[in-house]
Amino acid sequence: MFRLRAVNEVIEESIRYLRHHPSVKRVSLIHALNKISGETVYSAVMLPPFPKSTMDGYAVKSSNCSSASPSSPVILKIKKESILAGEKGNTLGENEAIRIETGGFLPEGADAVIPVEDTEQRGNLLYVYKSIGKYENVSLPGEELDINDIIIRKGDILRPWHLAALEAIGREEVGILDIKACVFCTGSEFKEKFKPFTRKLVKGWLLEKGFTEVSVKVLPDDVDIISKNLGKAVMEYDVIIVCGGTAKGEKDYTIKAIQKLNPSYLLHGVRIRPGRTMCFSVVNDRPVVAISGLPVAAFSSLELVVKPILERWLKIRFLEYPKIRAKLVRRVTSKMGFKSFIRLRVYERKGQIYAEPLVAGGSGSIRSLVLGNAFLIVEEDLEGFDEGEEVEVELYAPVYKENL
Amino acid sequence: MFRLRAVNEVIEESIRYLRHHPSVKRVSLIHALNKISGETVYSAVMLPPFPKSTMDGYAVKSSNCSSASPSSPVILKIKKESILAGEKGNTLGENEAIRIETGGFLPEGADAVIPVEDTEQRGNLLYVYKSIGKYENVSLPGEELDINDIIIRKGDILRPWHLAALEAIGREEVGILDIKACVFCTGSEFKEKFKPFTRKLVKGWLLEKGFTEVSVKVLPDDVDIISKNLGKAVMEYDVIIVCGGTAKGEKDYTIKAIQKLNPSYLLHGVRIRPGRTMCFSVVNDRPVVAISGLPVAAFSSLELVVKPILERWLKIRFLEYPKIRAKLVRRVTSKMGFKSFIRLRVYERKGQIYAEPLVAGGSGSIRSLVLGNAFLIVEEDLEGFDEGEEVEVELYAPVYKENL
Repeated sequence: MFRLRAVNEVIEESIRYLRHHPSVKRVSLIHALNKISGETVYSAVMLPPFPKSTMDGYAVKSSNCSSASPSSPVILKIKKESILAGEKGNTLGENEAIRIETGGFLPEGADAVIPVEDTEQRGNLLYVYKSIGKYENVSLPGEELDINDIIIRKGDILRPWHLAALEAIGREEVGILDIKACVFCTGSEFKEKFKPFTRKLVKGWLLEKGFTEVSVKVLPDDVDIISKNLGKAVMEYDVIIVCGGTAKGEKDYTIKAIQKLNPSYLLHGVRIRPGRTMCFSVVNDRPVVAISGLPVAAFSSLELVVKPILERWLKIRFLEYPKIRAKLVRRVTSKMGFKSFIRLRVYERKGQIYAEPLVAGGSGSIRSLVLGNAFLIVEEDLEGFDEGEEVEVELYAPVYKENL
Repeated sequence: MFRLRAVNEVIEESIRYLRHHPSVKRVSLIHALNKISGETVYSAVMLPPFPKSTMDGYAVKSSNCSSASPSSPVILKIKKESILAGEKGNTLGENEAIRIETGGFLPEGADAVIPVEDTEQRGNLLYVYKSIGKYENVSLPGEELDINDIIIRKGDILRPWHLAALEAIGREEVGILDIKACVFCTGSEFKEKFKPFTRKLVKGWLLEKGFTEVSVKVLPDDVDIISKNLGKAVMEYDVIIVCGGTAKGEKDYTIKAIQKLNPSYLLHGVRIRPGRTMCFSVVNDRPVVAISGLPVAAFSSLELVVKPILERWLKIRFLEYPKIRAKLVRRVTSKMGFKSFIRLRVYERKGQIYAEPLVAGGSGSIRSLVLGNAFLIVEEDLEGFDEGEEVEVELYAPVYKENL
């Protein structure tokens, strides 16, 4: 027998042994999309660099226009030049106005932009029919982006707006966490006919989380071969995941293979369902995780154990799944002391959100993942939920609309 | 002046003119990750194909074991062979048992698997100490995946579990929507020093939505050049987006360029803020959308107008942003009749979720996007929300934790 450990215990303990850190790689901005930032970037520039017009109009001194009204306009002298977007005007004197485009930089002496529609041009004179305040229609230096603004934090996922802000400060590249995983699928039955299809779930999950490379290899049920491959992988990859061979008893090839590598930390059995036979170990300061070869048990281990460990170890901030409250159409039972991962089909009917637990097919069923769209985590201290109870579920695909 | 139109009007109207459909391209499974499925795939196989053991034990006839108990065991004859994972046994006779591994297929005649721990082996005899029900510890054909199960729907985003299920039914490729966009940034000021950085936000947004290709080109403020480029793009790309040149009045180069192409549908001005000067048109049966060159106005147009149109036009089901209820720390005002897109910084302090509206820098500020993590949509019929009011916001990055 082995003693099963609580998820939080595993996280707290294992984190102390994970001393390896993936390297940081500089890539062009667009290749960094949805990857994990390897650096904290502060703005070193001020945008706009000078006061900038946010309107098409005339750059003026606001103090010259303070008395302007429709019945008694202020009259200014229009300077010959005009300031285009991205250009900077020369000095503006008292009672002068310069034509300026949206995006043009104000000339020295000007502090506001009066919109075209509040003026009238007569020859080289400008009639201003409305008073204007200081900095009106002007974007001040640093308003768009200021010196020392944090553009991206190390551990954050790089999203489209980060790329835009990085380009705005003149960056063409950004450092991303070059985090590489090797996924092994064990099982002597995987020859031609049977495919270890859980590998696609694991590889896809890791890529969605921002991993830069995920290699997949199939190995036979042979402790020596598995151990040799793991020993090589912990020198080349940052995270190693083995699917299969975690059962207790005679078939725990993977556990035996890990033991041969003298792990600094080894834990076999976590209080999650499905997936309780999983193993978390640390070899060469990095994680070697053995999870079930069955797809749902594998998914449950990734979500409930691997994800929080990645977050703690590498200080990554993943965006959560959308949550929604839904009414259970059937009772959900869960074993006390276990964190349970329940698959659901969540749908909307006449404005009410319902959740149907998908239990058919047991823990191994890929069916429950493709027919479903959400999961419910039942914490260790609960035995489940009753039919009709409203629970908070996590959506991994959109709610089905049923308008019957 | 131009009449601004409501978002729903634009969607309902434009959809009728969008008669083009992007082609479907077959790609290997892993390249389909996070792309839009171009086909609905039904399972043509049953998994498992035969009754399969979910335990290490002995395949038996349940009827032979109905009287078994710890005090009066049933005695069965153990057949010589044993069934490994992925293999199928021969026929089982009356009062016989065959050793079977988890994942092994039951022999003809067997209908249950008795776990090793409920038995005792004495020579070639098996003592069974517990009765067992029909199909106990057996996964029946179709339980993991059944014939006609829908694995993926056309228009759904392909996720890791879909790839696993596709591999499980023997697929190596899947058809994805080969949806290609061309993004033009207009502005004569974009030479060396000033970069039209909004392009990164638009390109990243489209790639995150599952577009297969996004080309970006910078064009000067010249109606003929813009028009010529658009005319070429509508023959090569499925969606065309122009950033900039949408202002009303003399600077609407993009609008004029679109008009020269004789669009079947053209609408200039939508009741969203920011982004109200956007233009939605249909040329060669596909969308040519002109949005602001300012990053937040562009983002607002993409989220409030382009996204729902893509969903309706191509029947795509995007996963929504996570929603969370948060208490406003400042009043939010919005212009009646406009759908407003308010940027927020959402944080947790002492268990309470707060939302701080980010108004500094106006509509164009990339700052509000990188410092913030959420947005609030204020519908057309509302004037805003009061300080202290609880509102539902959409998160595009994780909630900040402030433990002060």
